[in-house]
Amino acid sequence: MGGIEPFVEGERVLLRRREGDSFLLTLAPGPHPVEGKGVVDLTSVIGRPPGVVVPWAGSEYRVLRPSLSDLLGHLRRKAQIVTPKDAAQLVGMAGIAPGDRVAEAGAGSGALTVVLAYSVGPTGQVWSYDRRAEFLDVARRNVELTGLASRVRFEERDVGLNGFSRSDLDAILLDVPEPWTVVDHAMAALRPGGYLATYTPTYNQLERTVRALRTARFEEIRSVEILERALHVGEGGTRPEFDMLGHTAFLTGARRVG
Amino acid sequence: MGGIEPFVEGERVLLRRREGDSFLLTLAPGPHPVEGKGVVDLTSVIGRPPGVVVPWAGSEYRVLRPSLSDLLGHLRRKAQIVTPKDAAQLVGMAGIAPGDRVAEAGAGSGALTVVLAYSVGPTGQVWSYDRRAEFLDVARRNVELTGLASRVRFEERDVGLNGFSRSDLDAILLDVPEPWTVVDHAMAALRPGGYLATYTPTYNQLERTVRALRTARFEEIRSVEILERALHVGEGGTRPEFDMLGHTAFLTGARRVG
Amino acid sequence: MGGIEPFVEGERVLLRRREGDSFLLTLAPGPHPVEGKGVVDLTSVIGRPPGVVVPWAGSEYRVLRPSLSDLLGHLRRKAQIVTPKDAAQLVGMAGIAPGDRVAEAGAGSGALTVVLAYSVGPTGQVWSYDRRAEFLDVARRNVELTGLASRVRFEERDVGLNGFSRSDLDAILLDVPEPWTVVDHAMAALRPGGYLATYTPTYNQLERTVRALRTARFEEIRSVEILERALHVGEGGTRPEFDMLGHTAFLTGARRVG
Amino acid sequence: MGGIEPFVEGERVLLRRREGDSFLLTLAPGPHPVEGKGVVDLTSVIGRPPGVVVPWAGSEYRVLRPSLSDLLGHLRRKAQIVTPKDAAQLVGMAGIAPGDRVAEAGAGSGALTVVLAYSVGPTGQVWSYDRRAEFLDVARRNVELTGLASRVRFEERDVGLNGFSRSDLDAILLDVPEPWTVVDHAMAALRPGGYLATYTPTYNQLERTVRALRTARFEEIRSVEILERALHVGEGGTRPEFDMLGHTAFLTGARRVG
Repeated sequence: MGGIEPFVEGERVLLRRREGDSFLLTLAPGPHPVEGKGVVDLTSVIGRPPGVVVPWAGSEYRVLRPSLSDLLGHLRRKAQIVTPKDAAQLVGMAGIAPGDRVAEAGAGSGALTVVLAYSVGPTGQVWSYDRRAEFLDVARRNVELTGLASRVRFEERDVGLNGFSRSDLDAILLDVPEPWTVVDHAMAALRPGGYLATYTPTYNQLERTVRALRTARFEEIRSVEILERALHVGEGGTRPEFDMLGHTAFLTGARRVG
Repeated sequence: MGGIEPFVEGERVLLRRREGDSFLLTLAPGPHPVEGKGVVDLTSVIGRPPGVVVPWAGSEYRVLRPSLSDLLGHLRRKAQIVTPKDAAQLVGMAGIAPGDRVAEAGAGSGALTVVLAYSVGPTGQVWSYDRRAEFLDVARRNVELTGLASRVRFEERDVGLNGFSRSDLDAILLDVPEPWTVVDHAMAALRPGGYLATYTPTYNQLERTVRALRTARFEEIRSVEILERALHVGEGGTRPEFDMLGHTAFLTGARRVG
Repeated sequence: MGGIEPFVEGERVLLRRREGDSFLLTLAPGPHPVEGKGVVDLTSVIGRPPGVVVPWAGSEYRVLRPSLSDLLGHLRRKAQIVTPKDAAQLVGMAGIAPGDRVAEAGAGSGALTVVLAYSVGPTGQVWSYDRRAEFLDVARRNVELTGLASRVRFEERDVGLNGFSRSDLDAILLDVPEPWTVVDHAMAALRPGGYLATYTPTYNQLERTVRALRTARFEEIRSVEILERALHVGEGGTRPEFDMLGHTAFLTGARRVG
Repeated sequence: MGGIEPFVEGERVLLRRREGDSFLLTLAPGPHPVEGKGVVDLTSVIGRPPGVVVPWAGSEYRVLRPSLSDLLGHLRRKAQIVTPKDAAQLVGMAGIAPGDRVAEAGAGSGALTVVLAYSVGPTGQVWSYDRRAEFLDVARRNVELTGLASRVRFEERDVGLNGFSRSDLDAILLDVPEPWTVVDHAMAALRPGGYLATYTPTYNQLERTVRALRTARFEEIRSVEILERALHVGEGGTRPEFDMLGHTAFLTGARRVG
């Protein structure tokens, strides 16, 4: 998503004001309406490199290629989203690499979908399953916002009942209330050496999931929780921040070997 | 690094025994000496898919495409290495995507180098700088072990003194004792929108680094520490593990905008 | 503060409504005005045991001997207070026992003063120093609210400048911005074997304090932070709470030996 | 346990060498054998104040009144013991005050018993129950080592089956595998306003205990875990320690009100 190549028409760009608001837009010639901000004309940006400044609405905006953090920051949230710390850890636990074929269930609000689409790159592919059409719609719209829609296929499907209908997946990520119902289907859908990673808020879900993974003969089963504590570097001194999120979920990684 | 395509000659593969030892080898016809284990012949594996079983030394070994975790698990350690939890978080904080151009200093033992090479994929590029030739040698050998050497260029260079000699980097990761000496050079080497991420074990280093980042007009400066706590799912019940690593380092992310 | 002996006149009691409000009052015959609640008559409670029920304002209130938690819950807060987790740890680190002579500086809002007065019991004694008269006033009023005022002597005094004017203290607790200015005075004021405990929010204060303690030849120097994470036991399962206080202060204990 | 009054015969004292070993002994005239160290004569210490120096075995030893930490450091451990951080928190959660009547089950190795005996002071009383005679023996011997035996009564009794046979207890602490079997007995044994505190290593035990407390109509039910993280203040900088205990137990406090 990076590089210093000049901007091209049709590319998703970030307009960003110092210490201020920011917008995720598609680069196109001519004036473009922006919700609540009037109209912006980015014609002059086409062919210019990242970092170019555009005057708009009395301020100066930098135009950048959006980072993953920019993309996630502009999603429309309708559901609890997986935090960046957990998303980074899940991608690591699942060993996701550029070019990978990855499935997730459920789609949630599409935040994890975006992380996966970003991580597999243009040569990879993401399948996002949910049995609830309304969540798929939210996720699909969010992924479209980010410009990564070509990497993702959404499917309305209950993977606990019907499985994944593939057997070559490099990784599967589960953020569903009953991951243990999906474990056998995941084993069938992963290639040998592929990883399953699950996200379970309660210890009860964790325990039942891990036991199902053992029964299904998954290997390299490992469960962790990731605590993120921010640091405050102030004039008067440095200390951990007072605010902290005490819990999100327990993360479990497991591998299909045989 | 995944897929179910048949194995090809020259590919790096993992031989793995259930609940046992594992080996990272290059696939080639004919017998191959393995340190401390005699000789293995993987000729029959060429053209077969991942998951194939090879009898060896009285046991059965599965042949898999190695995951990032497999690669990291087979490094020869000569220095304190960045843990997977921190590596995953640094990759996330630095917004690293497939195809990215990324620099790191220092090279350490090459563990973070491997994570970066894995994350940028075959279309990306990693520059690894260290002023100490002996660390570069360790890192280079470790990266060669993983089969990712074509993605990495090692350079003996003191980036605190001499900078990065590029100005199009998508991300820079610093694991050096005095990151504040590198901050201005990093600003010059990053593309607009690119990220710097630093790894500092002490509060003193963190504080001095963040202050240098502010002076250099980096934006989106954010410091965190990541605590990983493992969970034990046993017959008698589920609880956090007693063993825990209490500290590794403070991680700081910052962005060049203008 | 416990026991099942009948209530006596002049005793501080807690009126407590199930899942509702509670009041800390002094037991006396006749009607008693309660701010914002009208008048209560506790005459009938005198001579009855803890747990007796009093009808009041359309509800039933239990009358109990107040616990430390009740006392702290009824303080009038004017300053950041030391949390119960830290107070418990400080009392433990300072080895405070019934009958002890303990000093604190500063007085803060009197919350730690109350914990100390509670912990040393009726045969102990607490000295509370502050150089700011307005804090001493708040602390004194809060301690009076709890009924423990006879155990505490408040003194307007800058212990960094003027020291403690005693040399037989069992323990000293410091919650001041510059504890390192008090370290030598604390050494002179403690009995051999007595403990100093400090409460410092930033790592900079912690570092400077520990170095001063070493210079002053304190022994058994130990610094910790205490993280409290609450657990949620719900119908749908059990998990850590989402809300968590990420930081309060670093606690250091040290002992005068020689 | 403090004060600067001169040492008296029969008192328990600590002999302590700077950066070296230490011994808990009973003060008596004449030579006294010390396991593995030969013989010490403390006759001259009687009538002298704390801090006096005794030459012994080629070194100088200070004689001090032992602190709680000294007492706990000299126990003979036969079982996993409750850590000081948890003991301090349990004493706080249970609102234990000087003079209190407190019960515990089981006796464990007597470490928590010593903390309780120390905290209730000479006017308080501790009952320690265990159904296993061998644990009671260990705990009794450990309490005798500390000189606090007069404050503790040990009883071989299964409180899950037979209850506490009292109804005036200020606090009850449970460190047993199945606290839920004791909850109704605890309700009957506590005075109105008294607290129960439990120590449970697993989530499963925590969940079942809290549900039993709700059924038994305990109030102010609150569960936490306490994480202690040590700080390292070194020449090169300050940071959290690498070593950390990841888990001990979940602590639950609850109150009998009616």
